[in-house]
Amino acid sequence: MKIESVDFFYLRIPVVRDVGDGSQDALLVRVRGGGKIGWGECEASPLVSIASWCCPMSHSACKPVKDSVLGQNLETPQDIERINRLVGANGLDLAQTAHTLSGIDIALWDLLGQHREEPVYRLLGAKASHAKRPYASQLFGDTPEATYEKARQSVAQNYTAVKFGWGPYGRGDVATDAAHVRAAREGLGHDIDLMVDAGTVWEDDVELAIPRLAALQEHRVLWLEEPFVGGALQAHAELAAKASPVAIAGGEGARHFDDARNLIDHGSVGYIQIDTGRIGGITPARRVAKYAEAHHIRFINHTFTTHLALSASLQPFADMPEHDLCEYPVEASDIAQRLVHDPIHRAADGTVQLPERPGLGMVPDAQVINQYLLDVQIHVGGDTIYSTPTLDDA
Amino acid sequence: MKIESVDFFYLRIPVVRDVGDGSQDALLVRVRGGGKIGWGECEASPLVSIASWCCPMSHSACKPVKDSVLGQNLETPQDIERINRLVGANGLDLAQTAHTLSGIDIALWDLLGQHREEPVYRLLGAKASHAKRPYASQLFGDTPEATYEKARQSVAQNYTAVKFGWGPYGRGDVATDAAHVRAAREGLGHDIDLMVDAGTVWEDDVELAIPRLAALQEHRVLWLEEPFVGGALQAHAELAAKASPVAIAGGEGARHFDDARNLIDHGSVGYIQIDTGRIGGITPARRVAKYAEAHHIRFINHTFTTHLALSASLQPFADMPEHDLCEYPVEASDIAQRLVHDPIHRAADGTVQLPERPGLGMVPDAQVINQYLLDVQIHVGGDTIYSTPTLDDA
Repeated sequence: MKIESVDFFYLRIPVVRDVGDGSQDALLVRVRGGGKIGWGECEASPLVSIASWCCPMSHSACKPVKDSVLGQNLETPQDIERINRLVGANGLDLAQTAHTLSGIDIALWDLLGQHREEPVYRLLGAKASHAKRPYASQLFGDTPEATYEKARQSVAQNYTAVKFGWGPYGRGDVATDAAHVRAAREGLGHDIDLMVDAGTVWEDDVELAIPRLAALQEHRVLWLEEPFVGGALQAHAELAAKASPVAIAGGEGARHFDDARNLIDHGSVGYIQIDTGRIGGITPARRVAKYAEAHHIRFINHTFTTHLALSASLQPFADMPEHDLCEYPVEASDIAQRLVHDPIHRAADGTVQLPERPGLGMVPDAQVINQYLLDVQIHVGGDTIYSTPTLDDA
Repeated sequence: MKIESVDFFYLRIPVVRDVGDGSQDALLVRVRGGGKIGWGECEASPLVSIASWCCPMSHSACKPVKDSVLGQNLETPQDIERINRLVGANGLDLAQTAHTLSGIDIALWDLLGQHREEPVYRLLGAKASHAKRPYASQLFGDTPEATYEKARQSVAQNYTAVKFGWGPYGRGDVATDAAHVRAAREGLGHDIDLMVDAGTVWEDDVELAIPRLAALQEHRVLWLEEPFVGGALQAHAELAAKASPVAIAGGEGARHFDDARNLIDHGSVGYIQIDTGRIGGITPARRVAKYAEAHHIRFINHTFTTHLALSASLQPFADMPEHDLCEYPVEASDIAQRLVHDPIHRAADGTVQLPERPGLGMVPDAQVINQYLLDVQIHVGGDTIYSTPTLDDA
């Protein structure tokens, strides 16, 4: 089949707050071909990703993403890999390309799954999909007392692993950070895995991170996530050498397979966390998962948005039972909570499992899309180069 | 002073061709503060960079660039560094941020230079500006014969160093590539430095690159540029180990100091080539130059556009006489050739020198801007969030 159309739907809650909650907006991607529909989602900054879809060409290595996607042939997984490489080469000098491609790549896998009537993980070559143990992913409280309360709540919800991140952590003094970690551990008790996400707060300054290690070690934190920006390989490696038994985790900002590989090869991370909505989709995420497996590094999804994104993020490592943890958003916005009809619920034993339905197994609810849809119009040189489609313009 | 306004001007020649000529469009940035004006330029995809300037916030680490720039205080070089870090933190999850910041950072240095009545290189701490030896930077011909003719032309223009890149190189067979390199060397004669730019054509496949080395070695090519995408550190290092005495060069795609540092630390490049219009401006480019100097790696500008961009790209290593080569565009579009009143001409001895005028020493010609200016309008949710300014809207 030919890829006949690609449409973007920019959803946003009415009031976006200045907090680390990435579910306040969403950019859905709908791809049509051969009478079927595939859905995907791009992480972050919907307008900029739309612009990189439709922008005028600057030169041969700076073309809009649409030039490499529309009209392409899609029959096999290899076609998706080919389109992925084509988008990369034609968008070499356009920094946003990977984010835009991500939602398209996801939608192409979904579309191919609809055609083949197979879940995406099978198209990726996986023979089985194993249950994952979700960790509750949430922001730190504003105070240690609030963090404690959130930890108690996660216990009440039967989570066996909990991550706190962002908020005040790393921005104040070392004692306050330690108090948050202690509060989290006290709230969780002894048996629940605890992880901490620093949200790149120390940029590349190892000396700011080191004094935080003692509390993380004392309270048996499994990993410290994103102490630094993703490219700061040397800083990651230096901190990892001092942090044991706490592992360093990172990779959510990866915009290419190489970003993740370099964190493994030169950054000494113990956990590599990939957001299929940023790295270029399921295609490079699967490549990272296989690379991590071969190098005895744990692969984990990064997901803080919808269950469409969650399904996409779980496909690349569905068949790796020893990589058993998965990120599971618990504080998502109304968009993220209500977008799909049949989300990935936790089972009675607390685990989650990918649906056995074709593709991603997730169909967005038209009512939710229409409720939160923002109209976007872009005009360049007198031409309308982008106008938000309607949902039923088939 | 406060940063009062930042305006973008998207220029484009009437017909943009599908070739590797990056001068077919341009995104100029005008910053105003304290009654003075500073100019900068972003490399590639003007619309997408405009969108990342003005897009709605997604969350606390995905804000439009404008939120971190407008109203900021600017008195010293440290203020520019502070703004640079702020943009980075607030734009962590917005991939286009570095490209947008680039033109703004350049314009802030120019503005500060206008206020202090000093060239930018002095604000960077350089005591002197040394002449550079420009290499003619151009595309390969479509045939070896055409490459030979271009080489002859460069000789006639008294260049002592010439680079050929892109076009057919690396896309056909090894013999054809070798014929192009031989033609270039024959056209140049024995005494002129010859460099080859592969434009990332082999992505990360070392086996495709290795068979090309023999011709590069035989014809005494100084460096092979961008055999792979910038993140493919391992591939760079593997090829460098086999290429001697040909050096591996790269770095033009760097979008952060760390991208360049990693190529030096783990990619074994001999030359690090930085485009101030992509890496985030003059601030991170200066940091790379100092890092390269300390690690005995040659720093070179990457510039394929206007003389405003050329001036910005030369400032970070003006005081490093041993880093004497500079890229000098010789096939630029009418926009790039005519944009500034007083471009950086080659002196009688063939060298080029930064102007001693304040800032970048480059004032765009209003007539050229108006001749090539494209109107851009962006509407989101019924609001006009961007509308191209007029040049004289002060």
